Amino acid sequence: MKQALTLAARGRGTTSPNPMVGAVVVAKGKRVGSGYHKQAGGPHAEVFALEQAKSKSRHATLYLTLEPCCHTEKRTPPCVPLIIQSGVRRVVVAMRDPNPQVAGRGLQQLKRAGIRVDVGCLKREAAELNEVYIHWVKTGQPFVILKAAMTLDGQIATATGESKWITGMQARAHVHQLRSQVDAIAVGVNTVFQDDPQLTARLSGQKEKTSSTRQPVRLIFDSTLRIPLDARVLKNIETSPTAIATTSQASHKKMEQLRSKWVEVLVVPQKAKRVSIRRCLQELGNMGITSLMVEGGSELNASFLREGLVNRVFLYMAPTLLGGQNSKGLVGGLSPKHLVQKIAVSNIRMQPLGDDVLISGDLNSKIQ
Amino acid sequence: MKQALTLAARGRGTTSPNPMVGAVVVAKGKRVGSGYHKQAGGPHAEVFALEQAKSKSRHATLYLTLEPCCHTEKRTPPCVPLIIQSGVRRVVVAMRDPNPQVAGRGLQQLKRAGIRVDVGCLKREAAELNEVYIHWVKTGQPFVILKAAMTLDGQIATATGESKWITGMQARAHVHQLRSQVDAIAVGVNTVFQDDPQLTARLSGQKEKTSSTRQPVRLIFDSTLRIPLDARVLKNIETSPTAIATTSQASHKKMEQLRSKWVEVLVVPQKAKRVSIRRCLQELGNMGITSLMVEGGSELNASFLREGLVNRVFLYMAPTLLGGQNSKGLVGGLSPKHLVQKIAVSNIRMQPLGDDVLISGDLNSKIQ
Repeated sequence: MKQALTLAARGRGTTSPNPMVGAVVVAKGKRVGSGYHKQAGGPHAEVFALEQAKSKSRHATLYLTLEPCCHTEKRTPPCVPLIIQSGVRRVVVAMRDPNPQVAGRGLQQLKRAGIRVDVGCLKREAAELNEVYIHWVKTGQPFVILKAAMTLDGQIATATGESKWITGMQARAHVHQLRSQVDAIAVGVNTVFQDDPQLTARLSGQKEKTSSTRQPVRLIFDSTLRIPLDARVLKNIETSPTAIATTSQASHKKMEQLRSKWVEVLVVPQKAKRVSIRRCLQELGNMGITSLMVEGGSELNASFLREGLVNRVFLYMAPTLLGGQNSKGLVGGLSPKHLVQKIAVSNIRMQPLGDDVLISGDLNSKIQ
Repeated sequence: MKQALTLAARGRGTTSPNPMVGAVVVAKGKRVGSGYHKQAGGPHAEVFALEQAKSKSRHATLYLTLEPCCHTEKRTPPCVPLIIQSGVRRVVVAMRDPNPQVAGRGLQQLKRAGIRVDVGCLKREAAELNEVYIHWVKTGQPFVILKAAMTLDGQIATATGESKWITGMQARAHVHQLRSQVDAIAVGVNTVFQDDPQLTARLSGQKEKTSSTRQPVRLIFDSTLRIPLDARVLKNIETSPTAIATTSQASHKKMEQLRSKWVEVLVVPQKAKRVSIRRCLQELGNMGITSLMVEGGSELNASFLREGLVNRVFLYMAPTLLGGQNSKGLVGGLSPKHLVQKIAVSNIRMQPLGDDVLISGDLNSKIQ
């Protein structure tokens, strides 16, 4: 099962909206087949493993990191019939598939075919591996990561919005790695005005050739569609899709202008005259976006946190102090009246990145 | 020399304004005497070590973590004549005493008496041990530590000033330990209004009995003497001395009221209508205060940092997010226009304390 999990993890960043899955076939104490799910639309792990094992799969044991699929409303045929045909005697599964279209039915079908089924081996590891997928399937919303580069005193920009650069090369390279693993990246339109970012994943050695890296959807929160038509996030749409979350306050003409540039304009219900973040996440979830990285600024970060919609933080902390009452802090918005309103972050992890430190942690957001 | 350094460190927190010093006498490869400086006014390390060695010090080697004293304008007699009388053949010294009253003269006198003198063994370790003393002797000002308890996003209080408690028990116990090792603690008068703190060092098991712990001087920055006469920092003056740094703007009547309570009122030159921090530090240095811990709030922290007068930061970081544009950040004051104005912190160290993390680091302040 450990081997199967290691194999599964090779699919990181390319299987979405599918889960990462690994499969190993063992006959007479020997590994006779193995595989993992490489990308959505491509063959599942089970197919690779059983094809490799061929006739040796007869009476063998199949180790799977996730319950095999049995539903047919998708691009690839279900795996359960294939497993039954292969003649394996036993299937060991790390965890059930929380997808309501499966949810134990795959295991039932195997049992009915006379195959011994064991569930729960390295369940926690398997759940951790697919936490994004599980979150998306259970809530219908993407797993949200809040990312920021900040000083020791929690500032992300000067009062005038200058933020380049707070952290060093290694931290920034790490951000690009992260970007290449999420389905979408979000910023507020103020960040577009301020920094005019590209919001693409640029891995080392690929500074200009972004096309070879899988690009996340670029999402701009812009309640009234103030975005300039020449913004850099509106370029290279063919390789880096861009979506704008706006409200019915926005001009229809601007919507049409953007749509004619192949930008996806999402008109989302309002909350306090702004895009309702919760409703927007539901929409993104429906679109198959399983993970979203929020890259600020202060006000967008505050909106996500106050709604309890952040699942994890990635804070790149530089060894500097900026200070200043009007500098931009990590989390803006209205100041809480009382300390009890502070938001707990658990499982804090620290990782040095050059001179900076990456502090990551989990939030027990309300929706979980 | 390692043993001598370990011995010296036992004096931490009690030798000020003297340095920590350790001494070991070695004869025929054996340790025949050792000692350390326990407290200002008491015998020096050399005295303990040579008294213990008695006649065995003849032809022996004396290891000293700091050049022995030769000046007489102080409470205890100089050590150099004692060393010469003891008959030691060789003296190994980790570093010269930067005190201009010594500064190599102690070593010269030993050499003139025919004793072999070696300088520089574990010099760096010895300098680190006495960094506070060295800073004070070289600059005439106390070594300044900025201490704060803050959230992950660098907030030290809500907009209304609520700050109890951001960090947990272990972090707070660590603060009391630190307080017992510095000569003085400073806060702004706003912190007195807000929290009415005692500003004493309360070590575990001594919650109410502060008298058994050496207490730092409590220093309040209060340019116009607004401090309420019933503030808790004005109580227990006999065990916890209190000083107030003010300016000539303050009322003479209030000064007299405070002085009649045995509070030390320091009238310091002004800078922008406030106490000049630099001039105040010079005054404190003259008073024999070698180390000062600044405990905020935001504005006092900013004043010290902008003047480049902080030598070290101790930031107790809790795993929480507070947020809010008007919450109190670690460093207040005017916002810098450009990122290049950020202040570098070097030698970052991280230490878990319960759920919190202590981040400490050094500042290359202008005065060094």
